[in-house]
Amino acid sequence: MKKFMNEAAAMVAESLEGFVSAHGGLIMFGAERKFVRRRHLTPGKVAIISGGGAGHEPLHVGFVGHGMLDAACTGHIFTSPTPDQIIAAIEETDTGAGCLLIVKNYAGDVMNFEMAAEAVLGRHRIETVIVSDDVAAQGAARSSGRRGVAGTLIVEKILGAAAEAGVNLAGLKALGGRMETQIHTMGVALSGVTVPDTGRATFTLEPDEMEVGVGIHGEPGLYRQKIADADTIARLICSTILADTGLQNGDRALLLVNGFGGTPTPELYLMYNVARRLFEASGIRILRSLVGTYVTSLDMAGLSVTLSLLDEEALHLWDAPVLTAALQRGRHDPTGGC
Amino acid sequence: MKKFMNEAAAMVAESLEGFVSAHGGLIMFGAERKFVRRRHLTPGKVAIISGGGAGHEPLHVGFVGHGMLDAACTGHIFTSPTPDQIIAAIEETDTGAGCLLIVKNYAGDVMNFEMAAEAVLGRHRIETVIVSDDVAAQGAARSSGRRGVAGTLIVEKILGAAAEAGVNLAGLKALGGRMETQIHTMGVALSGVTVPDTGRATFTLEPDEMEVGVGIHGEPGLYRQKIADADTIARLICSTILADTGLQNGDRALLLVNGFGGTPTPELYLMYNVARRLFEASGIRILRSLVGTYVTSLDMAGLSVTLSLLDEEALHLWDAPVLTAALQRGRHDPTGGC
Repeated sequence: MKKFMNEAAAMVAESLEGFVSAHGGLIMFGAERKFVRRRHLTPGKVAIISGGGAGHEPLHVGFVGHGMLDAACTGHIFTSPTPDQIIAAIEETDTGAGCLLIVKNYAGDVMNFEMAAEAVLGRHRIETVIVSDDVAAQGAARSSGRRGVAGTLIVEKILGAAAEAGVNLAGLKALGGRMETQIHTMGVALSGVTVPDTGRATFTLEPDEMEVGVGIHGEPGLYRQKIADADTIARLICSTILADTGLQNGDRALLLVNGFGGTPTPELYLMYNVARRLFEASGIRILRSLVGTYVTSLDMAGLSVTLSLLDEEALHLWDAPVLTAALQRGRHDPTGGC
Repeated sequence: MKKFMNEAAAMVAESLEGFVSAHGGLIMFGAERKFVRRRHLTPGKVAIISGGGAGHEPLHVGFVGHGMLDAACTGHIFTSPTPDQIIAAIEETDTGAGCLLIVKNYAGDVMNFEMAAEAVLGRHRIETVIVSDDVAAQGAARSSGRRGVAGTLIVEKILGAAAEAGVNLAGLKALGGRMETQIHTMGVALSGVTVPDTGRATFTLEPDEMEVGVGIHGEPGLYRQKIADADTIARLICSTILADTGLQNGDRALLLVNGFGGTPTPELYLMYNVARRLFEASGIRILRSLVGTYVTSLDMAGLSVTLSLLDEEALHLWDAPVLTAALQRGRHDPTGGC
């Protein structure tokens, strides 16, 4: 394991310090460095708070800023933030309109965000949206078995834009509910990951193997198979997603191809190219696209493909301006662009 | 070698097709797909054209758009674009004010851009700026021995902003000349790279080794040593850069920490944190920062640190709005931000 770091135990804190230092115009540490928040809060706007283990950067801290999150809580690597961190974020960023918590569907995350919500009961109005976009576990019920993966950034973008537009807490909760069945992600890995603390790989692949249906915590996927060319991998992913979506001919969608940390951008664009053609051949209209390394699993080589239904409301909110470290877009015409 | 690709020979073309498809609002292919250009040219503005081998993405295609490049020519992996490509880009994007060519200092690139400039002599006014920011070869004269590496994106941003502001060809050439001694980059690698065509690694490091003074074409660096912690690596890089710059106490600078493709963003922020402290301890004022994966060497694990002097003019141009696939910034206050 080769990494740019000092002591493994201090890695997350040192990296966050650099992040806040580099983007000091947009963000700052919250109380006692328990979370990262916008430098300027908007009174009367619902505060959007997310968080999760470190190792998925730029998710979530990279999405703190105008048009997305108000605060993000970072735990240790692949470890949920503590209720204490989440409570501190709620207390500092709730300006009176309540807080919406966006939580990836992992037992630890769900539990700690729930504990935080209970702890502030009576003092803050809280609603929670659980993201569970991973289609790999086809049989599992969305509410229990499905993990929250790259689609989380779409939820954060769309709910963040809605909050910015003045939608209230109940409206955001309802919008989050409608999005629950609209986002579908599947991932493949060409390598496992090595966790800095332990120096151990979470799983090891042979030089000719790939892991299909992986999440973002280095856990093994659904199955392992011989590595294939990009066309074959894209067919496997896209057909699994299409079987899950129930999308109809003529439906409009956002296509996100997301790298897991160790995959170069040109490979992501190559896979985007193949996936877009496959979806379009199935009658889906790809109206918006995003290609890049956004929701990661340390330095894992691999990627995920996300297809998200874009109704008129979601399209409008996706196109709204955003100013965060990892995603910036002004009021220009986004047609066909990222 | 595991990569998301079909045939190695088609990799660059397939990836570029995906890139143009994903960012169709901003960019398009030029004639016969020989280059990527802005969708909308500005009549009377000097056209800024760059290019180089593939394998460095998002450089250069990711920087085509308002405020940076008008066109970028991509060669095969680590191979200069042909004069034919560059000539086509000149002919299509010169709207009457001439073309400025930004060329990284490699023999093949310099030769092919020169041949293109000669071929259009009398029909187009052409000036060229050679980027040679790599300080690793301390003894070498800037004009011959030093490679153009991550600092290239700073040259493209600043000259692109100047062209957008209406500076003419002679003014841009002069500005490029002034920047020549202001940008200083040094890189280290934790791995070699595997070129898809050959499937061979350009160099191989032991599990406890790093390569110091590397460029972006997988060539070996100055020397190899035992891997060290982030503080030690940063001291090595920053002291080499400071010895080269001649920067004085109180000078203002831009700090760029750039990943080579296989290094996760949190490690880049960690190194940024250490490097910023070291430079500030030397009296340099870090006014602007950029941290990310911008100028790459396929999937090489490693990074470079760039320190660039920011006089009043450069600061103003760095802050100007930009709208490209890889770099977007509106008219907000960039103080302390990226």
